[in-house]
Amino acid sequence: MLSYSFEDNKSPIYEQLYNYIKKDIMSGELSANTKLPSKRSFAGQLSVSVITVENAYNQLMSEGFIYSLPKKGFYVSDIFSIGMSLPTDKNLYKENKINRSSRNEKVIYSKVSVPYYVNQNTFADFNSNSADPASFPFSTWAKITRRILSDDQNYLMQNSPSNGIIELRFAISDYLEAFRGMNVNPNNIIVGAGTEIMYNILIQLLGQSKVYASEIPGYDKIDRILKANSVISERIPLDEYGIIPEQLTEKSVDIIHITPSHHFPTGITMPIKRRYEILEWANIGLHNFKDKYIIEDDYDSEFRLSGLPIPSLYSIDNSERVIYMNTFTKSLASTIRISYMILPDHLMAKYNETLSFYACTVSTFEQLTLAHFIADGYYEKHINRMRSSSRRKRNLLLRCIRESSLGKIATINEEESGLHFILRLDLKRNEKTFLEKAKKQGINISPVSKNSYMINYSSIPMDRIEEAVNRLSIAAFD
Amino acid sequence: MLSYSFEDNKSPIYEQLYNYIKKDIMSGELSANTKLPSKRSFAGQLSVSVITVENAYNQLMSEGFIYSLPKKGFYVSDIFSIGMSLPTDKNLYKENKINRSSRNEKVIYSKVSVPYYVNQNTFADFNSNSADPASFPFSTWAKITRRILSDDQNYLMQNSPSNGIIELRFAISDYLEAFRGMNVNPNNIIVGAGTEIMYNILIQLLGQSKVYASEIPGYDKIDRILKANSVISERIPLDEYGIIPEQLTEKSVDIIHITPSHHFPTGITMPIKRRYEILEWANIGLHNFKDKYIIEDDYDSEFRLSGLPIPSLYSIDNSERVIYMNTFTKSLASTIRISYMILPDHLMAKYNETLSFYACTVSTFEQLTLAHFIADGYYEKHINRMRSSSRRKRNLLLRCIRESSLGKIATINEEESGLHFILRLDLKRNEKTFLEKAKKQGINISPVSKNSYMINYSSIPMDRIEEAVNRLSIAAFD
Repeated sequence: MLSYSFEDNKSPIYEQLYNYIKKDIMSGELSANTKLPSKRSFAGQLSVSVITVENAYNQLMSEGFIYSLPKKGFYVSDIFSIGMSLPTDKNLYKENKINRSSRNEKVIYSKVSVPYYVNQNTFADFNSNSADPASFPFSTWAKITRRILSDDQNYLMQNSPSNGIIELRFAISDYLEAFRGMNVNPNNIIVGAGTEIMYNILIQLLGQSKVYASEIPGYDKIDRILKANSVISERIPLDEYGIIPEQLTEKSVDIIHITPSHHFPTGITMPIKRRYEILEWANIGLHNFKDKYIIEDDYDSEFRLSGLPIPSLYSIDNSERVIYMNTFTKSLASTIRISYMILPDHLMAKYNETLSFYACTVSTFEQLTLAHFIADGYYEKHINRMRSSSRRKRNLLLRCIRESSLGKIATINEEESGLHFILRLDLKRNEKTFLEKAKKQGINISPVSKNSYMINYSSIPMDRIEEAVNRLSIAAFD
Repeated sequence: MLSYSFEDNKSPIYEQLYNYIKKDIMSGELSANTKLPSKRSFAGQLSVSVITVENAYNQLMSEGFIYSLPKKGFYVSDIFSIGMSLPTDKNLYKENKINRSSRNEKVIYSKVSVPYYVNQNTFADFNSNSADPASFPFSTWAKITRRILSDDQNYLMQNSPSNGIIELRFAISDYLEAFRGMNVNPNNIIVGAGTEIMYNILIQLLGQSKVYASEIPGYDKIDRILKANSVISERIPLDEYGIIPEQLTEKSVDIIHITPSHHFPTGITMPIKRRYEILEWANIGLHNFKDKYIIEDDYDSEFRLSGLPIPSLYSIDNSERVIYMNTFTKSLASTIRISYMILPDHLMAKYNETLSFYACTVSTFEQLTLAHFIADGYYEKHINRMRSSSRRKRNLLLRCIRESSLGKIATINEEESGLHFILRLDLKRNEKTFLEKAKKQGINISPVSKNSYMINYSSIPMDRIEEAVNRLSIAAFD
């Protein structure tokens, strides 16, 4: 029977439990499809609270290490048999009426376009995932800016290396280690004025003649950038675990852009098994002397509202196949254009050789301000503040929906991840009419599949939430 | 006989005289190859000083409206016969032993590479055309930053239009009108984080399959950017008037990058006649349904040390063939990444339709700071201060060279334009040895042709100039 002892150190008990179980699964100690103890009995056995076990199980589930069967309990996933789908036990297949072929046919999310254009006159924009203006730390930012403009004048006049000033790259690397468990060499980081610009650089680095692909549904902007760069651009559909690996082979994709931590817009967290499948796809390419790469867009990993953040694909990649991308555009302000990517060693060497003649696109002033902001601990505080304000916002929003006339027809999905959730509405009226009425009410909202809508609440001020739900109700019923 | 009267208004007499003569040349009143009065007699006749006439003649010469023949005097150029070369009178050809065929063979400047990489440990870098750190207006910049971080918080959180915030585009347009005589619609301006990024966008706008070209010698970076974008990239040689138009046709160029105000690195100012020839090349393309474009890089027009700035190619283009580019990287600080380009109407419409999904690459914070900096008159003051400090620096540098042992072997060319001149040294020693010894002395210097060196003095602090010349002498003699 599972027996773990907990150390009285800084990390929470649920996290220690999560790590123990994960380690046992990774080592094979806990084999595929082993049934885990129920939450209640395990809690008693370990002398911890039921909530602690629940938190650990939830985290393991969201990462795909375990799965649950209704009224049966929790089971260890078959994480090693790459190329097969979750869950792998054939009896379980039948029991749950999921099987490989049916799942591959059933792509949950329709191929709708996610609008990239935001009308600034809207009352509430549930499509925008930019930060709430009220949350920007103006006084701290002003304080740091004032200090560097007075103390660091010479430094501010020195040209930044092409990939960004070392202070900022160290700050990013330290931050990723502390809060994302990532081990990143600051020399592999490239800082730039937004992920869009990064894409232009990446295409120059990886080659114009490669086949690029993005998720559908997903950020349409990625597809537009690919097309603007005149490269072959495919769209790859998803099933409930994220992008479908077979489609990558079928469409001869060389480079795939994915959002595994939190798929935009569906909110799917890609389970560990699917992650290994995608890595395997890139590795098989490598064995065939074809360079396949995965661009991991980790755009809102800071904002997961419960549990530990999902380990990045970059962290579990041993073959230099993953390019990691993240941005401060969402966590700080969309008007400050600072993003970064992390290249594997051989690509960084190629960048230094062929593309480092490009000047860094972010001014040294803002790079240094941000470096201090992170290194002095303000970024962490800011994220915590944002996270708890998001939680409050989400709770208010859910309560308002529940208490409004929408409550009777609403189901909420993916509420634990990031800054949005999926709202399913069993509308009596035609969807088109609903969307038109919502628009008239000043509410921007988009379907991710029939009758399911993406609710991005990050940009909406707290004091507009109640009224926004009222207007949605009007659109649904009046 | 020429007779002009001067108004007692704000513009200097020499400028009024320049305008009168230019107007008469443009109207045909003064026909091609008309001899102008000598400076002395004209001065007497107009009751102005000889210096005034000299200044007006110099300005007209640098723009190609007139030419001078040794011991003969000043003549009106044949500015209208597009497709022919300066001067056009056949007798004059013989007299001066220049003729078309011989000139086309004789390309003055060798095809040397201009290094783009700067070693920051160098004592004096005559290759760098970045601004002197000491000249950055820190206190004003800090004042404006402080003000907007306190007063404009909501605005700072609003996404900038793809082509930049309207305040900055208006400020740029007003500045160009006042100081460059240009009439620019702010809606045709695109703001971006450096000209390099602009190039990536331009290639996406104009097309991947076009033939692009840059000057040789010239900015090697342009060529590298073109190659990084996998487009066909040609290099076009110069004669003493700038890029050779016939070569554009010969090499089937579609888009040519030029620096007509002040060629980098030779310092050539393209005469008006050659400008019309290049425009004609683009227009002929248009008549053949081939879109030809000229990218006019006006990178240091603010810094011409004497006379009026040369009118831009953009201003004299009536067929929407010229894309104007300029940057604050050189006039303000290379570490603040703000450049802009001005597109003709039909290209701007195409940009808005196809590429405006790109977020502006400059943060709203710095855009707004710069907009205030320009609109409140600080930029003008800054440029004036930079110009007079450049003049002092140049004078000191020239005096130091004259008074050093270099004086006996040195000739100076192109000293009136911008922030650099050409130093010709009649070295006794091998050039390679000289360059190696200079490097050992911490002096970065590059040849533009045999024994001629580009002297960029903008980045060199005043108090290093004397020592830098000492070190150069050591490299030349010891």
